[in-house]
Amino acid sequence: MTKHFGTASVRFSNPPSIIGAAAIVGPKEGEGPLASYFDKISADILFNKDTWEQAESELMRQTIELAVQKAGLSAEEINYILAGDLLNQNSGSVYGARSFGRPFFGLFGACSAIGMAMGLGAMIVDGGFADNVVANASSHFCGAEKTFRFPLELGTQRAPTASWTVTGDGAVVLSSNGNGPFVTSATTGAIVDLGQKDVNNMGAAMAPAAAEVIKNHFNDLYLPHDYYDVIATGDLGLYGSKLAEQLLQDSGFDFGERLVDCGALIFDNENQDTHAGGSGCGCSATVFAGYFMKKIRDGEIKKMLLVPTGALHSVVTIQQGETIPGIAHAVAIERKM
Amino acid sequence: MTKHFGTASVRFSNPPSIIGAAAIVGPKEGEGPLASYFDKISADILFNKDTWEQAESELMRQTIELAVQKAGLSAEEINYILAGDLLNQNSGSVYGARSFGRPFFGLFGACSAIGMAMGLGAMIVDGGFADNVVANASSHFCGAEKTFRFPLELGTQRAPTASWTVTGDGAVVLSSNGNGPFVTSATTGAIVDLGQKDVNNMGAAMAPAAAEVIKNHFNDLYLPHDYYDVIATGDLGLYGSKLAEQLLQDSGFDFGERLVDCGALIFDNENQDTHAGGSGCGCSATVFAGYFMKKIRDGEIKKMLLVPTGALHSVVTIQQGETIPGIAHAVAIERKM
Repeated sequence: MTKHFGTASVRFSNPPSIIGAAAIVGPKEGEGPLASYFDKISADILFNKDTWEQAESELMRQTIELAVQKAGLSAEEINYILAGDLLNQNSGSVYGARSFGRPFFGLFGACSAIGMAMGLGAMIVDGGFADNVVANASSHFCGAEKTFRFPLELGTQRAPTASWTVTGDGAVVLSSNGNGPFVTSATTGAIVDLGQKDVNNMGAAMAPAAAEVIKNHFNDLYLPHDYYDVIATGDLGLYGSKLAEQLLQDSGFDFGERLVDCGALIFDNENQDTHAGGSGCGCSATVFAGYFMKKIRDGEIKKMLLVPTGALHSVVTIQQGETIPGIAHAVAIERKM
Repeated sequence: MTKHFGTASVRFSNPPSIIGAAAIVGPKEGEGPLASYFDKISADILFNKDTWEQAESELMRQTIELAVQKAGLSAEEINYILAGDLLNQNSGSVYGARSFGRPFFGLFGACSAIGMAMGLGAMIVDGGFADNVVANASSHFCGAEKTFRFPLELGTQRAPTASWTVTGDGAVVLSSNGNGPFVTSATTGAIVDLGQKDVNNMGAAMAPAAAEVIKNHFNDLYLPHDYYDVIATGDLGLYGSKLAEQLLQDSGFDFGERLVDCGALIFDNENQDTHAGGSGCGCSATVFAGYFMKKIRDGEIKKMLLVPTGALHSVVTIQQGETIPGIAHAVAIERKM
């Protein structure tokens, strides 16, 4: 049976259920407006480890452990872990997943990672290849600054359009059995690159990809524009989200207040000095696994489209004069099937 | 219907057909014993570009274009590109895939990438989520040396157990329609880390993962030990392959001459000075898409198990004293269903 439609949308015939979700964040996120929605706030940004990289792996390990526990499963009942992060060679995920001894797929979609992990994970479950999978994404402010910008010790001033990488991990357990919420459909994005080169304005680089995948999703599946209560982009931030909104409006999609951005939600910019807002794989992952999952479970949100966004450049490609390729993946989560 | 068995093995109910495959390599691979099996040998290791990273992306672009063409398709008929490489933030794949404008999944499994891409790609096709997908993996000797070891300009002496990263890209097109060869089953590996720290002996770090996934594959699917004509590990090289053979023998699996290694096949060590042999995502990818695919099509090989192997460390984790996590994924390819 064909389950795919249009550009790259799939509708699941047996929508996988999210039977467990967990979000653990660092101290700064724990001082933000969504603090009460996270499962755990670590006062120690090193998570009791010696390096930023080890800290991210430990954060990832703890979050998966908690999500699996909340799902009422043991690690042995997880068929696959799908995980992405920002560090070179997926170090955050690799070393964090190591102790579980479960079949492992490392993903790279930059900050779109949780969308990719949930989309692929749902295909694996709906396709009959697994009973339970973990979809995970993590990032760490200090590790990301070291990898992509400057060592923190330099105290470099930040551009107003720069975003603040979230220290956080969001994990969801998708299962062939469960009472929801369900992953009902997904649209996978292509790389969209309009020539943006400014790494201090990644929202602008990702906005066209976000607009594109949202349009494709609605068009491919013939959905009315008011189908979802919430459409949440990943981490376009305060500036990029305006661009995406404009691009969508130009194409006849006016979602009004339904359209929000995880990067704009997670910090209080006025008091936390986060400039464009939150970013990083952990941004959409924690805001979804923490904030939105609670609102869905409480019935406040019945249907939502999560659209994590990623900027796929590396330091080396930017130094060579390349532009920033953007990508976004859309995943639909509905309270009932 | 459950299609999964044991630890992490899946048997496809409608095995995807490999309807196109292409392998393009650099000059050194073109002087090796498998030269006649590759579709194209580039005399220019820069592939007419200015940097190693751009060269790898161009190599990747050309190889996918050729594989899709050999499949008799246009790029628009490809539902997903799944691709992995060794560069930071998957730069080789990202910038190479950009021009196709197709839905894109970036994968990180180090040199196990083609196994991961084919396994996940086959799940996507068999699950009904795509008609055609491209599974791809690339590496470039100069880019890998720059990323993981030393700039070539230093002329650093190589350790005898060090492997030589293959400059090459292998792409296969998996389709829901076709006359084979077919991807009939797959076993996904977990991270196996026995504490090896020597980045000049990655074969030793990966051998336990290779042995583990091979054992799991045979046990999960209850296969007789002589089921496959060939079991080809990815890039354990001359030393690592001996370790894997020993580990398998210790567990009662004696495959004799059926067990070969892509890294040991691609170079003539005596005359090419490649020490432990070939490695890199492009090693198993080109040896499979070039050499083995021809032998399968010619009927010389009827059933084979491809077991790409990966060392999942990064420069940073090694500098921090971490060990090298190994992984391997097994994919079964059979001439007839």
